[in-house]
Amino acid sequence: MITVNENFLKLKSGYLFPEIARRVSAFAAQNPDADIIRLGIGDVTEPLAPAVVDAMRKAVDEMGIAESFHGYGPEQGYEFLRKAVAENDYKSRGVEIKPDEIFISDGAKCDTGNIQEIFGTDNVVAVTDPVYPVYVDTNVMAGRTGNADKKGRYGRIVYMPCTVENGFVPDLPFVPVDLIYLCYPNNPTGAVATKERLAEWVQFARRHKAIILFDAAYEAFISDASIPHSIYEIPGARDVAIEFRSFSKTAGFTGVRLAFTVIPKELKARTADGKAVEVWPLWNRRQCTKFNGVSYITQRGAEAVYSPEGKQQVRQVIDIYMKNAAAMVGSLKDLGYQVYGGVDAPYIWLKTPNNMDSWKFFDLLLTKANIVGTPGAGFGAAGEGYFRLSAFNRPEKVKQAMERFASI
Amino acid sequence: MITVNENFLKLKSGYLFPEIARRVSAFAAQNPDADIIRLGIGDVTEPLAPAVVDAMRKAVDEMGIAESFHGYGPEQGYEFLRKAVAENDYKSRGVEIKPDEIFISDGAKCDTGNIQEIFGTDNVVAVTDPVYPVYVDTNVMAGRTGNADKKGRYGRIVYMPCTVENGFVPDLPFVPVDLIYLCYPNNPTGAVATKERLAEWVQFARRHKAIILFDAAYEAFISDASIPHSIYEIPGARDVAIEFRSFSKTAGFTGVRLAFTVIPKELKARTADGKAVEVWPLWNRRQCTKFNGVSYITQRGAEAVYSPEGKQQVRQVIDIYMKNAAAMVGSLKDLGYQVYGGVDAPYIWLKTPNNMDSWKFFDLLLTKANIVGTPGAGFGAAGEGYFRLSAFNRPEKVKQAMERFASI
Repeated sequence: MITVNENFLKLKSGYLFPEIARRVSAFAAQNPDADIIRLGIGDVTEPLAPAVVDAMRKAVDEMGIAESFHGYGPEQGYEFLRKAVAENDYKSRGVEIKPDEIFISDGAKCDTGNIQEIFGTDNVVAVTDPVYPVYVDTNVMAGRTGNADKKGRYGRIVYMPCTVENGFVPDLPFVPVDLIYLCYPNNPTGAVATKERLAEWVQFARRHKAIILFDAAYEAFISDASIPHSIYEIPGARDVAIEFRSFSKTAGFTGVRLAFTVIPKELKARTADGKAVEVWPLWNRRQCTKFNGVSYITQRGAEAVYSPEGKQQVRQVIDIYMKNAAAMVGSLKDLGYQVYGGVDAPYIWLKTPNNMDSWKFFDLLLTKANIVGTPGAGFGAAGEGYFRLSAFNRPEKVKQAMERFASI
Repeated sequence: MITVNENFLKLKSGYLFPEIARRVSAFAAQNPDADIIRLGIGDVTEPLAPAVVDAMRKAVDEMGIAESFHGYGPEQGYEFLRKAVAENDYKSRGVEIKPDEIFISDGAKCDTGNIQEIFGTDNVVAVTDPVYPVYVDTNVMAGRTGNADKKGRYGRIVYMPCTVENGFVPDLPFVPVDLIYLCYPNNPTGAVATKERLAEWVQFARRHKAIILFDAAYEAFISDASIPHSIYEIPGARDVAIEFRSFSKTAGFTGVRLAFTVIPKELKARTADGKAVEVWPLWNRRQCTKFNGVSYITQRGAEAVYSPEGKQQVRQVIDIYMKNAAAMVGSLKDLGYQVYGGVDAPYIWLKTPNNMDSWKFFDLLLTKANIVGTPGAGFGAAGEGYFRLSAFNRPEKVKQAMERFASI
């Protein structure tokens, strides 16, 4: 008799964004004339940079000719792209990451979701609260948690509150934890972590033989020069951290799919009886067995992001979004909202008026102002009473959205 | 203390194809002038069809313009492609599969590797021997097996020998099994399964409340009209089977990445206490949480495979490979080899001369004839003494390879 993985049955409701999509579709079906402005899911709106389009067009043409056709590529990504990443994302910031420590993939959601597979199910997982749901849900599926309580908190997971008081960077836990998910610039709060705060975490991980899974998907949005873009800017991090990056928001690749994961060769975990095991070969084996690389065309497009024109074009797009964010922060503050983030991150985290339930605020905003945001509760219990707005939209839409905000 | 998933440590050596790549690289480095002919990994050589190139070029251009830009797509794939698959791959053969039963993905390797996640670790897995290593290795990683013995056979897995006697379609097992991997047309043996043989398996699965994971990645190579292309051509299969398809070999997408998985809505598995649970929502939840859809550009390319020109162009390419296969079968038989497959599948399964060890034959063929094949032992213990050649190469190369075979 075939049995299901019963851990899946512990999962609470749908994954956040499909649930939002469902509510928006239902509203749109009933109100076909509503001009809905989407500041919810965090999907980009600006087109791909011309340098990327050119590179991909060229790659498509190559694929149509026998002499330049590319079949299976390396599971870990093409050397040309891994070198460009090492050079531009790391060496340029004084960080030494070798090309073969970089694994190209089709998304940071996939990588942050799959990485837990190579670790034991006995590890204690620590996440921030609020948190990107993928970190939690994938550990639920793998059996690293108990059941959820009424607030949606799973047993055995250590939730680390991110609050106004700690600047949305969690305090070090008092209990030992093994697998620590940190995301800075943060989704959903838009907060950043200073070198000093990250250094505390690196020291903690070294002391407790823990591993930090550092999601830096939004690093391109950092404007403050003192804020680290990579956890490897912190001394000692190579022994205790895996880093995730994404082209989704940096270069508008949400519909194209490219990301990468960095696993330093020094990084080790242990067997139950304490023997050290290198992590890099485990992930390499996982990727070689369950993944077959990213489209050649997409990888050529990604390479173009690092060309002089590509860099400039991508920078211009990020500037558009960050101007949106600044405008949103300004307008919302003027309207009397308590607002966080939006300076070094494309997300704005606002306190709901009168502590309103965040899904209630979602429905209010959708029905009264035809604006889609993301309810804070969707990111965890500590997100209740908050609401996430993303700066990913066309400037004129953002302006309209702020005008509508003024009228609710 | 962070622990590893110790199941990974049970895995034997490298995954097959990276190991082949390693040996070939080493040989090529020492023999830079050797003109190596690759009939090993099963990678295609013909370029993408013009209809696909046109569609992808158009899609790239769309992505460069704000009005036609596509961000996140549905995790399950775009409706336009799911409809085209339902219509062309199923309805045209009298099989009713609804578009929402089709999950578009970035590869059949990924899907056949990931699918086991939604099932309990207590299930008994049955695989053919020889077998595509992904089915086994992913179950090892998930903890559904014991350790490997000297022959590389893992404890708790039920290996079903595929031999000349049973036409490389396994006999029904005498022990109860829960999760049954079948691949027809078969990789590596090139064998096909008749409707009658598949019907026995469907009946077996129904009787034992088992699920068949049916890998039909090579269905486009079937020439015999009586052979089923889909397991759903067998009455009763919707209740007990998941089907995997791939564009890799059908349309030369090995470097582009697109495949799909079909999960009928009726399909059920059970909790440990016997309660029926629908499988579709589990896979949907898995994909929504750990996957973010396939590139819009790739999906538009895949759609073009179903256009009138696309169909014709793709057919021409398949004909090239199948002519290769026929030529290889003919030449090898003339040389006195025992040869199987190569008629309804792009793989030729040959008996090594004098029962030679298959890795030894691999090395012999590489060093003496500069031909890369795949040692049968790489597919399991019962593959020892056999060797796989793929028909994926340019006709002139295949001709050359056969001439070299004559001289060893």
